[in-house]
Amino acid sequence: MARQIALVGIGKIARDQHIPAIAGSGAFSLAATASRNAGVDGVDGFSSLETLLAARTDIDAVSLCTPPGPRYADARRALLAGRHVMLEKPPGATLSEVHDLIALAEARGLTLFATWHSRHAASVAAARDWLAGKDIRRVEITWKEDVRRWHPGQDWVWEPGGLGVFDPGINALSVLTAIHPRPLHLSAAELSFPANRLTPIAADLTFRDPEGAEVTAAFDWRQEGPQTWDIVIETGAGTATLSDGGARLSVDGTEMSAGPDREYAGLYARFAELLANGESEVDLSPMRHVADAFTLGRRVEVDAFEW
Amino acid sequence: MARQIALVGIGKIARDQHIPAIAGSGAFSLAATASRNAGVDGVDGFSSLETLLAARTDIDAVSLCTPPGPRYADARRALLAGRHVMLEKPPGATLSEVHDLIALAEARGLTLFATWHSRHAASVAAARDWLAGKDIRRVEITWKEDVRRWHPGQDWVWEPGGLGVFDPGINALSVLTAIHPRPLHLSAAELSFPANRLTPIAADLTFRDPEGAEVTAAFDWRQEGPQTWDIVIETGAGTATLSDGGARLSVDGTEMSAGPDREYAGLYARFAELLANGESEVDLSPMRHVADAFTLGRRVEVDAFEW
Repeated sequence: MARQIALVGIGKIARDQHIPAIAGSGAFSLAATASRNAGVDGVDGFSSLETLLAARTDIDAVSLCTPPGPRYADARRALLAGRHVMLEKPPGATLSEVHDLIALAEARGLTLFATWHSRHAASVAAARDWLAGKDIRRVEITWKEDVRRWHPGQDWVWEPGGLGVFDPGINALSVLTAIHPRPLHLSAAELSFPANRLTPIAADLTFRDPEGAEVTAAFDWRQEGPQTWDIVIETGAGTATLSDGGARLSVDGTEMSAGPDREYAGLYARFAELLANGESEVDLSPMRHVADAFTLGRRVEVDAFEW
Repeated sequence: MARQIALVGIGKIARDQHIPAIAGSGAFSLAATASRNAGVDGVDGFSSLETLLAARTDIDAVSLCTPPGPRYADARRALLAGRHVMLEKPPGATLSEVHDLIALAEARGLTLFATWHSRHAASVAAARDWLAGKDIRRVEITWKEDVRRWHPGQDWVWEPGGLGVFDPGINALSVLTAIHPRPLHLSAAELSFPANRLTPIAADLTFRDPEGAEVTAAFDWRQEGPQTWDIVIETGAGTATLSDGGARLSVDGTEMSAGPDREYAGLYARFAELLANGESEVDLSPMRHVADAFTLGRRVEVDAFEW
C-alpha cells in the first residue's frame, strides 16, 4: 500500500515535478499539502506546516519544496514532530543548519533525505561507471540557462541564501561529485554580480583534482535561446559528453546511454528505499563547493538585472 | 624524550607563538624548518617542505603555519610522506580541501590536528562549564582589532582565501562554538568590503539558536587604540563576560577565572596527546560559519584600505 506523504510549498517546482512524481509513484500517495496561498484539488490543504502536523498525525513523511530560506525551520518542525523529511536542493541556506538537521534526525531515529535531482538524470550512473578507472585529463562543465524561463519573477533567487546562478549550478556540481572518481576542491572562482542584485548571475570555477586533471565550470543565467547543461570529460580512452543535464551520454560522438526524464521519480523511489531501510542520505559536497566559491570567489560587477 | 617536529612557514606567527611554544614544551623539540626565505638559528633549515621531507625521514610530525592558501598542498604532501600534521587556523582555504585531508589522514592512519588556538585561552573552559545548563538569553561578540598592528603589510589577508576580518573573527567563532551548549547557524550577515580589496574589513553576523537565544557578532579590523575581544552572555543566572580573547571570565562583574596566555602551549600539549592516542581532531564548525557568512552575506562597499 502506498505511504501517505505531505508536500510543503506548492509552487512551480511542486506542480512541475513533485506532484506528478508522487502521482506516478507506487510508493507514495499525496495526502496533504501546506502552502500559504495554494493547494491541490482534492487533497487536504493547510496554510501552514504547523497546522498540518497537528491535524494529520497519520502522515509520517513530509517533502519540502519551499525556497531554501525557510526550509530549515520547516524541516526542524517536522523532525521534532516525529516525521521523516525529504528536502529539495539545496538542503538549506547554510551548511551549519543542515548539520543541525542531520544531528536531529539521527537523535530521533528519523530519515532525512537531502535530494539532488540531477543525480537521477537518465545517464549519470552510466557516466560514473564509464569513468571509473579511466585516466581523466580534463573536465569542462558548461551550465548556461535563462533565469527568466526557469525562475520567472522569483525574487528569492536574488536574495542572500537564494544562491543566484548556483541554484542551477549546484545541479552540475551534484553530477560532478557523483561521477568524478575522486573528491575535488575549488582553487579559484570569479563571481559576476548584477549591480542591483545580491547573488551572482554567472560564475567561473576552477577545481583542483589531487591527481592533476583540469576541472572547470562555467555557469551563466543569461543564456537565451538553446539552453546548455553539458559536462565534457577528456580521458585517455576517449572523450565523454554528458549532455542535457545528464540525460544523454556519448563517447567520441557515439551515444552510449539516453533516457526520458525520470529524475523526480528516482528521488521518490530513493526516499521509499531509505524509509524502508531506516536510513538517511545527506551528501553536502555540492553545497560545500558553493560555499567555498562564495568564500574564495573574486567578485565582478556586471549589468543590472531586471525581469 | 621529546619528539622531533618540523615547522613550516617561518613568519610572524611562527616566531611570536610556535617557536616559543615548542621550546617550552616537554613533548617536542624543533628539529627542522621549511620556509622560502627564513630559518631559525641552530635549526636544520630547508627552503621547501619537499626537500625537508626527503632529507629528514626521522621527523614524523609537521606543524604548518603558512598562510591558508598554500596550506593544503603542504599538508597533503606531508601526509602522503607518512607524517602527522598540525594545522594553524583556519585549516585551509576551502572546506572541501580539509575534507580531503581528513580522508587522507584516516586512510593512512595518521594524526591530523586542525588547531583553534583561542579555544586554549585561559578561561574558555571555565566559561563553557559555567554556561552548561544555564538559560542563555543573549550572546554578543565584539571582536575589534587593528589589522595594521596584527598583520602589518601582510597582503595575503586581502586575497581570496585570506578571509579578511574573518581571520581574527574565526577565533571568536572557535570560542563561541566551544562554549555555547548548542549548535548555532547563521541567519543573516553584512560584510563590509574596502573598495580596493577582495576580502571584508568588517562583518556583522546574526545567528539563530534553536532554543531562541539572540546571538550576534561584530567583527572590525579598523579599531585603533584599545583592542576588544569580548563575548558577553546574558543568562537567567547572571551575565558572563569572557574578555581579552578568552583570557578572563567574570560574572556580574566578579572575576571567576583568569590566567596568562598559554594558548599555543595548550595546542602543542593537545597535539602530543593526539599523537599518543593515535587520534585526529578536526572540528570544522568555525570555518563552516565563515563559509556560511560569505554565502549568505549582504555585501557593502566601504572606504578603500591602504597599509
